[in-house]
Amino acid sequence: MATTPQTNQPSPELIFDTLNAYQRTAALRGAIELDLFTAIGEGAATAADLAGKLKVPQRGARILCDYLVVIGLLTKQGARYGLTPDSAVFLDRRSPACVASAMTFLNSPELTNYFRDIAAVVRKGGAVLNAEGTMAPDDPIWVEFARAMAPMMAMPAEFIADLVGAGSGKVLDIAAGHGLFGIAIARRNPNARIVALDWPAVLEVATENAQRAGVADRHTTIPGSAFDADYGSGYDVVLLTNFLHHFDPPTCEKLLRKVHAALNPGGTAVTLEFVPNEDRVSPPAAAAFSLMMLGSTTAGDAYTFSELDRMFRNAGFSGSQAHALAGPEKVIVSRK
Amino acid sequence: MATTPQTNQPSPELIFDTLNAYQRTAALRGAIELDLFTAIGEGAATAADLAGKLKVPQRGARILCDYLVVIGLLTKQGARYGLTPDSAVFLDRRSPACVASAMTFLNSPELTNYFRDIAAVVRKGGAVLNAEGTMAPDDPIWVEFARAMAPMMAMPAEFIADLVGAGSGKVLDIAAGHGLFGIAIARRNPNARIVALDWPAVLEVATENAQRAGVADRHTTIPGSAFDADYGSGYDVVLLTNFLHHFDPPTCEKLLRKVHAALNPGGTAVTLEFVPNEDRVSPPAAAAFSLMMLGSTTAGDAYTFSELDRMFRNAGFSGSQAHALAGPEKVIVSRK
Repeated sequence: MATTPQTNQPSPELIFDTLNAYQRTAALRGAIELDLFTAIGEGAATAADLAGKLKVPQRGARILCDYLVVIGLLTKQGARYGLTPDSAVFLDRRSPACVASAMTFLNSPELTNYFRDIAAVVRKGGAVLNAEGTMAPDDPIWVEFARAMAPMMAMPAEFIADLVGAGSGKVLDIAAGHGLFGIAIARRNPNARIVALDWPAVLEVATENAQRAGVADRHTTIPGSAFDADYGSGYDVVLLTNFLHHFDPPTCEKLLRKVHAALNPGGTAVTLEFVPNEDRVSPPAAAAFSLMMLGSTTAGDAYTFSELDRMFRNAGFSGSQAHALAGPEKVIVSRK
Repeated sequence: MATTPQTNQPSPELIFDTLNAYQRTAALRGAIELDLFTAIGEGAATAADLAGKLKVPQRGARILCDYLVVIGLLTKQGARYGLTPDSAVFLDRRSPACVASAMTFLNSPELTNYFRDIAAVVRKGGAVLNAEGTMAPDDPIWVEFARAMAPMMAMPAEFIADLVGAGSGKVLDIAAGHGLFGIAIARRNPNARIVALDWPAVLEVATENAQRAGVADRHTTIPGSAFDADYGSGYDVVLLTNFLHHFDPPTCEKLLRKVHAALNPGGTAVTLEFVPNEDRVSPPAAAAFSLMMLGSTTAGDAYTFSELDRMFRNAGFSGSQAHALAGPEKVIVSRK
């Protein structure tokens, strides 16, 4: 009787893991709510330490920590837990780059409820919760997005500010959300003037952030839909961050023609997007984002570089260039 | 301006992936409900083929399939999707080893609701939904378990039947559920007589399965709790499949003393369990199962081999031996 299984024998293990994958989300959410990562960052290393510091039974601390080691968010040496490089930077609340608040958007019922019945989503070919998905006018989800996701956008915002550099004079920040992209440019370039466009309730968050950053005097707003609002003209840069993925290509092109018209000659559209490779199944995070759009919009998608480049060319741009980031997204710079 | 990120730079990608991991579960559940894997097994290879066969819009079929490629449950060559070795064996309903029904237990609200608030679970140190977790008498979840999980247990059941072989005369199947473990032994060994113990409603499922397998004349039942029921005596084998993990070690030892007393001299207890290594964080599936027990029981756990061996020795067994399976569990044979 063999005591080890044959190698490469099919196994239900990945299926079992996937049917239980919702527990990964639940465990990380729980750990963030308990502020477990900060406690470990502050030196609580064993289950007993953590039980004392968080005032929870040791069984709970031990099992949750072991699970977080299994899913790659903690380390374990003997009985001592530690932060990984990622969790130290992004989950310890003492870190300026902490993104723990992203949980309140990504795991809000307003978003996760879109994924309760994927069979129904596939049968419809898009969001089933309401006729327009999250693209309904003034959907309150975008205020939550603006408040919760700002930390996750800090690194891309700095990258983009660095990229556009002194080339930014008048900047239109479409679907500005938290406003961080325009604000990062304004902080970097004292000559930049930012015009932020979004739903009125969302713009309150952007305006707060502009005041806090000390750039409110160069930060104005246009309330409304990016499709209907009057942008004005004379822009050197138009920012399109996490926006195009909500729409189908004809709708994107319609918007991009409007963007093109508002830009000065030689101006650039700067797009932040989840851009899968042409195979549409790599890299994982960008490719998987397509399901986020299937579930929460009627016609959005994660577009490949060639699809985005085609949309921009069709809208009159001369061409586009992609820049990789450390995170799951890319920056696409398209020149008028 | 560099266009590629530094290597080994911390990235929020794993955190983003984990906060969205619930979508892995949702996507697999949706694909099983749509019977997508069977459709691909039957030859529908492209998104267009699948849209036609499943009568869904192509956008839905394409995005779901791409996502399933990303999470490792389909393959993609050009525009053609295919089953992986695992999904061909375990998710195509034409396969005798299909485990798709496991979804109805693993993703039932009765189970998943235990994981809605892991912070509360950790604070309590165990299940928060009710005082006894899933260990309440006659919890209907175990009827669902018995009906849904049988296919996932077919392979371990054959392994165990092979392992105990002709050594099985009178067999006690504790917490029999679907009854497949005892039934596999009865089919393999015409001299085996199986006594299945479980809650009365669960035993109906086991009895149905024994009838279907043609071994009903050698399959009797004891309704009730494994802790309270009178086992009788003279057993050659006692099966403890997926049972000990629900309880703390003292409770397990109490049960094992009862098992020891019911066994003939030289008889064996055969345990099927998720057995993590001594580090408690590997291998992933066995280690992660500990969270399943934290969330759904008051004191259960995934025990290491040394912990199980100690419990059996404390209960009077002479020693235990572990056998690996192709799936996430192990078989532990303990001799009286």
